[in-house]
Amino acid sequence: MKSIEKFYSAVNNGKHICVGLDTDIEKIPEHLKHLDDPIFLFNKAIIDATRSEAAAYKLNFAFYEASGIEGLTSLKKTIEYIGDEIFIIGDAKRGDIGSTSAMYAKSVYDYFKCDSITLHPYMGYDSIQPFLEYKDKLNFVLALTSNKSANDFESLTLSTNEKLYQKVIGKVQEWNGQFCNCGIVFGATQIAQLQENIQLIKDLPVLLPGVGAQGGSLEEVVTLFRQNHFTSYLINASRSIIYASPASGGSIGNDFAEKAAEELNRLNVEIARLSSK
Amino acid sequence: MKSIEKFYSAVNNGKHICVGLDTDIEKIPEHLKHLDDPIFLFNKAIIDATRSEAAAYKLNFAFYEASGIEGLTSLKKTIEYIGDEIFIIGDAKRGDIGSTSAMYAKSVYDYFKCDSITLHPYMGYDSIQPFLEYKDKLNFVLALTSNKSANDFESLTLSTNEKLYQKVIGKVQEWNGQFCNCGIVFGATQIAQLQENIQLIKDLPVLLPGVGAQGGSLEEVVTLFRQNHFTSYLINASRSIIYASPASGGSIGNDFAEKAAEELNRLNVEIARLSSK
Repeated sequence: MKSIEKFYSAVNNGKHICVGLDTDIEKIPEHLKHLDDPIFLFNKAIIDATRSEAAAYKLNFAFYEASGIEGLTSLKKTIEYIGDEIFIIGDAKRGDIGSTSAMYAKSVYDYFKCDSITLHPYMGYDSIQPFLEYKDKLNFVLALTSNKSANDFESLTLSTNEKLYQKVIGKVQEWNGQFCNCGIVFGATQIAQLQENIQLIKDLPVLLPGVGAQGGSLEEVVTLFRQNHFTSYLINASRSIIYASPASGGSIGNDFAEKAAEELNRLNVEIARLSSK
Repeated sequence: MKSIEKFYSAVNNGKHICVGLDTDIEKIPEHLKHLDDPIFLFNKAIIDATRSEAAAYKLNFAFYEASGIEGLTSLKKTIEYIGDEIFIIGDAKRGDIGSTSAMYAKSVYDYFKCDSITLHPYMGYDSIQPFLEYKDKLNFVLALTSNKSANDFESLTLSTNEKLYQKVIGKVQEWNGQFCNCGIVFGATQIAQLQENIQLIKDLPVLLPGVGAQGGSLEEVVTLFRQNHFTSYLINASRSIIYASPASGGSIGNDFAEKAAEELNRLNVEIARLSSK
């Protein structure tokens, strides 16, 4: 199945939860730390427990790069372990001049074999274009992010009266005209703005981080999309799923995979309920 | 010597050329390709030939990430080989929500041991803050970049009549107030804008890519800075130095290191001439 088809196959089947494997060595259970490649072993257990119900997996590269070569080895093994059936987002937030972005595309798409990437829009079209050349991938461009400082620049008002992030969404719509392989990142914490811009987003795939630990409301997001007959979205949950087992003394419980599956299932049931209202 | 002191030590001694080690496996001489770790061997030869005259080295992470774990191994070896005496910029163009940016900082500063990084401003202060906590490093935030599509967003006019990149520079000045460890990236191809904003930049360190292959003029940049008694700048030259030896059949000549040193020397002589006019 082509990368982008995996995305549509999931969301069209009512699966919208993307499991964020932002695995932090400090937080995983002690007994794993004494084994070879604890990060991979932790991810493997989470994947085994969630594979049948996850819409996608998102790997934030920062968590792996923090441990250097060793971390990137765990990243590669994790992506290989997920395999070809489920949509994989390389949350790498890249963007550079064209010839350099082409190198990043080579890394995330050819080497790590992700189905999708997240991208910084700041440098404009030629920093995004090399990723678009991968026609069956899905390129999520940052629009309005979930963090507080999104106000510093993303929400600035332009002389045309648009907000900067609205201008970004407009440009992404334009770029999407070529191969239909663009999407946007929109923070689930920004529900009023999501509502206000639902017509501008039209049918662009949306990746929403910020539900759970960051405070975004699943109910509000799903209800808004249902009311607008919009289904092309993934809601990412990282910490609230992978660390669902109660922590004791810093690291989480040994039943982390079971608890992760329970939390994913709870979110899926909640989405199904809200979507059929 | 602290990271930031290496920067000032170079520029205060009239050294302003940063050698960009954007090493592309496709372009290096054939005989190196048959040896173990050709990228590192190429870099090593360039470093040996340019070490005494380079103000800094800049490693664009994309070129190494393109070859995955192997490339990142070359990157790490190259940084170790440069050693503690010369300022090293990790041109990684990172930026994510705070807790994630902290992981990127761990990667570029603690693991790869760079002295400096380049950062995307789009997500605002909390995406930059974890890097600022490394008080003796130098954090270059993208302001106006050298590529054509910089016009898409960076040069947009805000409702306050400022350009977006001017707003970014203003914010970087604010952030710099805390630990004096910020700088900006400003494309050498954008000379009119550089001139127009020289008072806004004040004494913020500036990293200027875009001279050489991208068409920026060394003469214009150096003359402008001399006229404004501004010395805290690094001009990056990548392809024009490391591929200075004429290409034959795709890869460059075997005398690449000698030619790189000659080109660096030529640029230094030119800067000295323009600076003392």
